Amino acid sequence: MPTSATPGNRFERRRAETRQALVRAARQILAEAGDAGASIQAIAERADVGFGSFYNHFASKGELFDAAVTDALDEYGQAIDERLRGIDDPAELVAASFRLSAAMAESHPEIMQILRRRGLEQIHADHGLAPRALRDLERGVALGSFTLADPAIALAALAGSLLALVELRLSKPGAGDDRAAEEMAELVLRMLGVPMDEAAEVVRRPLPPLA
Amino acid sequence: MPTSATPGNRFERRRAETRQALVRAARQILAEAGDAGASIQAIAERADVGFGSFYNHFASKGELFDAAVTDALDEYGQAIDERLRGIDDPAELVAASFRLSAAMAESHPEIMQILRRRGLEQIHADHGLAPRALRDLERGVALGSFTLADPAIALAALAGSLLALVELRLSKPGAGDDRAAEEMAELVLRMLGVPMDEAAEVVRRPLPPLA
Repeated sequence: MPTSATPGNRFERRRAETRQALVRAARQILAEAGDAGASIQAIAERADVGFGSFYNHFASKGELFDAAVTDALDEYGQAIDERLRGIDDPAELVAASFRLSAAMAESHPEIMQILRRRGLEQIHADHGLAPRALRDLERGVALGSFTLADPAIALAALAGSLLALVELRLSKPGAGDDRAAEEMAELVLRMLGVPMDEAAEVVRRPLPPLA
Repeated sequence: MPTSATPGNRFERRRAETRQALVRAARQILAEAGDAGASIQAIAERADVGFGSFYNHFASKGELFDAAVTDALDEYGQAIDERLRGIDDPAELVAASFRLSAAMAESHPEIMQILRRRGLEQIHADHGLAPRALRDLERGVALGSFTLADPAIALAALAGSLLALVELRLSKPGAGDDRAAEEMAELVLRMLGVPMDEAAEVVRRPLPPLA
């Protein structure tokens, strides 16, 4: 129960809440307009925290926005993971990730706007989604589903294609719809070395139902 | 001869030079840091033109930066075109474009930084590089080199992959080198429906020599 928390715990909890409020505000700003214009004052106001507390958590605006990108992409990865738990076929997993990501432009617009604006610089990160996606590709190679000389290059191409799909979906009504997502997933499977007829079949399998 | 120019011509020439100086300054700023911070005053100083002349040419900073992106991408397209004139095979043309683009990170760093920062939003433009690249893909389909249900989707995947290669090249030393560019070109050809053995061969053909 909250009342049984020690003062130390309450302080820590409060501190974590302030940080999270700043990250939430930065995520909104990133999704709406990129990180260009906002002052620290404006961010603190939006987060409903004192101006002074900003520097208890972040050394600079850039550091906050980086934390906001990480936070949004972690949530993106978790959403995909939860939905796709149980899919074992490496090709089906890649295809379903593409199709779900396109759908998330509507269900999670803030995350997808952040991915669109800041995703490209994440493709070679040594933490977060990139290393996990790389492991999925390597597993596909080990199982004989994919034929790749260098999975890291394939990961970059796959990530770039995904960002292009998100860009289409968010910027041009109708251009990145579910059929477009299937189509691009099919192209990406071909790229990974999946035979063309198999790629066409895999991307049309039913998606797992929402939990 | 310049002295024979009528005052009207001289005025027009002067006007065009001022505009071009502003575009050049905006290109430098975009390549160095994105368009976030710069004031119109700072841009005019960098272009060595009076603050007042800015609004003779552009209604806003955003309009100038859009013109700078267009200018840089036109130059990019021309550089690729000149080098690849004479290549007829649609697959070889795509592969050579990828390999040249990677090399341009060193030979044309300003253009490639602008492509990296602003390229994603250009993939569905109805002018400039996108429609031309689309025609190349459609020609490949017509000639039987590519198998694509929707060339516009393939264009988006191809463009996203190219941006990812440029990002690798510019951000992580060694990660987007010539071998990586060949590798990614091979993946992109597979995506377009080129058989795997043929894709591996096409991307290793010698590039046309510099003119």
